[in-house]
Amino acid sequence: MEKRMYKVGILGATGTVGQRMISLLDNHPWFTVTALAASENSAGKTYAEACAWQLDTPMPSWAAKMTVVKCEPGLACDLVLSGLDNAVAGEIEDAFASAGYAVVSNAKNHRMEDDVPLVIPEVNPEHLAVINRQRKNRGWAKGFIVTNPNCSTVGLVCALKPLADAFGLRKVAVTTMQAISGAGYPGVPSLDILDNVIPYIGGEEEKIQTETQKLLGIFDGERFAPSSTVVSAQCNRVQVRDGHLECVSVELEKPATRERIISVWRSFVPTAAALHLPSLPVPFISYHEEDNRPQPRRDREAGRGMTIGIGRLRECPVLGWKFVVLSHNTIRGAAGAAIADAELLAAKGVL
Amino acid sequence: MEKRMYKVGILGATGTVGQRMISLLDNHPWFTVTALAASENSAGKTYAEACAWQLDTPMPSWAAKMTVVKCEPGLACDLVLSGLDNAVAGEIEDAFASAGYAVVSNAKNHRMEDDVPLVIPEVNPEHLAVINRQRKNRGWAKGFIVTNPNCSTVGLVCALKPLADAFGLRKVAVTTMQAISGAGYPGVPSLDILDNVIPYIGGEEEKIQTETQKLLGIFDGERFAPSSTVVSAQCNRVQVRDGHLECVSVELEKPATRERIISVWRSFVPTAAALHLPSLPVPFISYHEEDNRPQPRRDREAGRGMTIGIGRLRECPVLGWKFVVLSHNTIRGAAGAAIADAELLAAKGVL
Amino acid sequence: MEKRMYKVGILGATGTVGQRMISLLDNHPWFTVTALAASENSAGKTYAEACAWQLDTPMPSWAAKMTVVKCEPGLACDLVLSGLDNAVAGEIEDAFASAGYAVVSNAKNHRMEDDVPLVIPEVNPEHLAVINRQRKNRGWAKGFIVTNPNCSTVGLVCALKPLADAFGLRKVAVTTMQAISGAGYPGVPSLDILDNVIPYIGGEEEKIQTETQKLLGIFDGERFAPSSTVVSAQCNRVQVRDGHLECVSVELEKPATRERIISVWRSFVPTAAALHLPSLPVPFISYHEEDNRPQPRRDREAGRGMTIGIGRLRECPVLGWKFVVLSHNTIRGAAGAAIADAELLAAKGVL
Amino acid sequence: MEKRMYKVGILGATGTVGQRMISLLDNHPWFTVTALAASENSAGKTYAEACAWQLDTPMPSWAAKMTVVKCEPGLACDLVLSGLDNAVAGEIEDAFASAGYAVVSNAKNHRMEDDVPLVIPEVNPEHLAVINRQRKNRGWAKGFIVTNPNCSTVGLVCALKPLADAFGLRKVAVTTMQAISGAGYPGVPSLDILDNVIPYIGGEEEKIQTETQKLLGIFDGERFAPSSTVVSAQCNRVQVRDGHLECVSVELEKPATRERIISVWRSFVPTAAALHLPSLPVPFISYHEEDNRPQPRRDREAGRGMTIGIGRLRECPVLGWKFVVLSHNTIRGAAGAAIADAELLAAKGVL
Repeated sequence: MEKRMYKVGILGATGTVGQRMISLLDNHPWFTVTALAASENSAGKTYAEACAWQLDTPMPSWAAKMTVVKCEPGLACDLVLSGLDNAVAGEIEDAFASAGYAVVSNAKNHRMEDDVPLVIPEVNPEHLAVINRQRKNRGWAKGFIVTNPNCSTVGLVCALKPLADAFGLRKVAVTTMQAISGAGYPGVPSLDILDNVIPYIGGEEEKIQTETQKLLGIFDGERFAPSSTVVSAQCNRVQVRDGHLECVSVELEKPATRERIISVWRSFVPTAAALHLPSLPVPFISYHEEDNRPQPRRDREAGRGMTIGIGRLRECPVLGWKFVVLSHNTIRGAAGAAIADAELLAAKGVL
Repeated sequence: MEKRMYKVGILGATGTVGQRMISLLDNHPWFTVTALAASENSAGKTYAEACAWQLDTPMPSWAAKMTVVKCEPGLACDLVLSGLDNAVAGEIEDAFASAGYAVVSNAKNHRMEDDVPLVIPEVNPEHLAVINRQRKNRGWAKGFIVTNPNCSTVGLVCALKPLADAFGLRKVAVTTMQAISGAGYPGVPSLDILDNVIPYIGGEEEKIQTETQKLLGIFDGERFAPSSTVVSAQCNRVQVRDGHLECVSVELEKPATRERIISVWRSFVPTAAALHLPSLPVPFISYHEEDNRPQPRRDREAGRGMTIGIGRLRECPVLGWKFVVLSHNTIRGAAGAAIADAELLAAKGVL
Repeated sequence: MEKRMYKVGILGATGTVGQRMISLLDNHPWFTVTALAASENSAGKTYAEACAWQLDTPMPSWAAKMTVVKCEPGLACDLVLSGLDNAVAGEIEDAFASAGYAVVSNAKNHRMEDDVPLVIPEVNPEHLAVINRQRKNRGWAKGFIVTNPNCSTVGLVCALKPLADAFGLRKVAVTTMQAISGAGYPGVPSLDILDNVIPYIGGEEEKIQTETQKLLGIFDGERFAPSSTVVSAQCNRVQVRDGHLECVSVELEKPATRERIISVWRSFVPTAAALHLPSLPVPFISYHEEDNRPQPRRDREAGRGMTIGIGRLRECPVLGWKFVVLSHNTIRGAAGAAIADAELLAAKGVL
Repeated sequence: MEKRMYKVGILGATGTVGQRMISLLDNHPWFTVTALAASENSAGKTYAEACAWQLDTPMPSWAAKMTVVKCEPGLACDLVLSGLDNAVAGEIEDAFASAGYAVVSNAKNHRMEDDVPLVIPEVNPEHLAVINRQRKNRGWAKGFIVTNPNCSTVGLVCALKPLADAFGLRKVAVTTMQAISGAGYPGVPSLDILDNVIPYIGGEEEKIQTETQKLLGIFDGERFAPSSTVVSAQCNRVQVRDGHLECVSVELEKPATRERIISVWRSFVPTAAALHLPSLPVPFISYHEEDNRPQPRRDREAGRGMTIGIGRLRECPVLGWKFVVLSHNTIRGAAGAAIADAELLAAKGVL
């Protein structure tokens, strides 16, 4: 485990993911925020002036006083966390990696590229090995890009990983009920979601399907072999602020019992646990015994938003087993995911 | 088609289903409400006094003036519609059927009994043939009981019926997002559902599984053979007033194409259509081309709440096909369902 | 009363107010919509293509097929209803009036000008007399502009008018709880209003204060003398789709009793009632006896959204009397208000 | 200031106020919870079994293990905090006071009695002097009853106190928008409040009017002289979980300016501040400069739910000045209010 403090820059600092990154990095034991970067409109202003703060906890005073700069290499930091919008993330992140920065991105742009690791520390930390190949491919001496998954993929894959390890995993069918904060700000108009459900989120179902296979797949030193698990997703937007709830059915390769599956979840120890990353929660997975849990409002904050909630495991007449998964979409599914990846890089000495 | 007016009594008239029955029977071309029955607390009061009216349309003035009576045989009517709570429905409905009344019930108590028809007019009107057997079994000379399905079953089965007829239907996995009105009044506490989803509705998943098989099954003149279709349901309560939205995946027996399936839905003509029942909507099924429809708030009132909305048909990597279904839970899924069954009885001369 | 059909154009036809105008004009006995005008982006498309329809009732088929044109004079119609945004309404409306069109506008731009009538048919139809002066001032031979009030002003003034006539009205303090549809679409972000109240609506309090005085004031043939009633407003946005609820306290000039005030409301017959305008509701005012009414969801549709709901009249220790008012903000407070004004113009022979 | 630990019992421990008391007393520096009392149904069970925990933070483990007892004297504690329902609070609290316990109650039953102090530590700590008289009147040797105000009164009076001291206060008109948690659990049915506002809360307006006058009044050693300030309240229920927002207009006795009023709020130092009560927040009052603040969701947690948020001070044409007040109804307005009163008793040596 690393002891020294790393200097961190945040790209897209005024957006909703950037705000959450700042909030989570307040008093972080390994990372000090030394640069806040955003669009040209914001550059030159103090962060307090530039940012329409959305969180219920106050803006940290150290952030409020910082002057926002443009998203261009030249920041005084070791690594950058990118909460940039997809529309601009690709090029800016390339520019930073090319200039020698370690880049950890929440954006979708690079996730599925064949030399870019898509990582959840508890699930596939070994995928970081592709970084050397990435540098060689792209001619980057020092910089590189690491990505975290889409908000609706994270909770699902965290629940699936122990099952895949213990029983093998053939098929997954998932229906999501996703929080409005997943669409950013201003995001979902209130007239669209009051007294309503929207049975569509553009691109979301494809992300769940492809990202899950990459995360559960193997990097053999040369290339990624995606998992052969077949995944089907149906995505809905519901009137919840934070917390994506997902109804999952799975077909396992080996026989299982209810007790055994719950035990597998509860006793799963990620290899990354040995690294004592500050953001990794204890427990990683919380299995709820009550019939009607987990629920977004009541359970999303568990483990400071990083614990995965699971409940309602029961037999599924169609695929074998079914259950419910909850994860906090803007912490475990976005800002906290990127920070955890950055911690993993620090602990493994990649920074 | 019958021309004469039938006299109708409503059991549980002050409850939410009873209120909706009264509203839907206002100016009904075949039925006149001649008796409103409820608990002892309400008996003797005018309906206006006894009832905490929940609908947005005003209480019909003819109903307001009627005196509520007890739920005991002796009502001046040809048939009774039962919106009674499960806790009391079973015995009271038996008493009415035994006393010679035709009973059409929205309660779950008798639905799965082997000599009781569970009917959606567009799906399985031929199941009414079991009535004779029911009378014989129970020693009822004239009375009988017919039931309509649970609110979350109706929309699903209406979408499945054309598929089952055209392609055969092996497996169904459904995740529901159900409206709060499905829990009656006072029902779901606001503290439970604001900014939340509740991933559990007691008994609901079992009802969907067993009722679907009965509805899609065959009555061979002797007994019901439930459909062999395997059904798995996951049920959730969301913050929507009316309208159950369901994400469905299906495995068909025969090959299909997207165009063919949509065409099968759009061109499905129920045999009951020939009877011109006043409550049957045109169209029976409305397929939405937009990516993000049907939605509860925007589409639940189609066909005065009786049209089934379907959308988002696409391939499912796990089961073959997936789509979204919407139905109005207190009209198509409860009060309107019972009235449609009563109309079917009238049109078929069973009354 | 006029019998012939008038040709009506709608400016801003694709916006939320324009949509509601189209919906309310479906099958209107006096008006036929002959032109739909909107921004350059929409011009040339069919209305079905150009418009993201927000209402729960379907888009009328005649509108769907019409080709949207630009907001420039040359439309084939007798009068134009303007649902334009404030940012562009002023100039466009001037251009139409200057070109000879009768313009009835829901926009705020011209409301407070000294030669423009701000009219609610039931409150101050005599203010239309200023039109001649307006034409003279502006050098317009035939065209003119009439405006309807802001959505939060209408309900208040309709409740105040009978009190002002019967008792005299010294002071009014009002706190509003306004629906999200009042902010248009996309309007209020869901992240701002879920589990929240926003105690501020830009410019709204000033509009209530000044418009109320103009509406209750006198046009003496030369100029407007605003009412001397002192008005203070506090405006809030709440999570309600449609229906502005307002808590009002008033100081009257003459003594009153609760019975007398309710009687004054219930028996108020607007002079415009004699004109039988199709949009004017019966009753104009509905006084609710229940402690907890009117409520937005349950009472906003009364009189097809045009009836004013009042309730909870009781003594106010500070000002004398207090009560609650409800009006449908997009019907009575916007599209329906403009249509009613247009009907008034037709009935009075001003068109 | 007291250093020793006091033993505290909680009456109504399983209710929503009792739950919040337990949560706020977790790790309290002065108080240790030694008894949890509730109805006969709960008595004998562990708290974890007896209680349907509603808060988002987990039930403290020390509480989970405690055995719930009946609400009868005999508890091992120095004082009892009562979160009992009004239906039973009166008699039970009398029994405890009569048996020698200090009772601090959130219930309304004793609040307006002439020998019972109704206290907010920052507003009227001197009212505790009536305790001696109370004991004499009631023949209680050691026990006594102290009460905290209604949830909607607290925020208002905290905002008014500095104004009353600095300028004198003639009249107050307040319209409240109150959170659903104020109605307890199950409380407000979701069907009543979704897409709605309920313009009525039984008894609430009277409480605000009378309690405000008592809190701002004088205890002269013999009796309470209520403040002559005239108060008028209109109360509404809105779809917010926690946080009562209030729109207030006031008539002051002396001239004031905006700057002066804001300064009076910001610089107000309660006499109780010298006692360093653990629950009193810093700042007591937070004045928000933004146009659209305070808001329930974004500002209710300030000062761990004990800071009063004020904003939007501006001139009121009717009464002189108007502004918005926010307070957390279940913390500052209920459980936290009782605990603060208990701390005041401890610090003043009354326990």
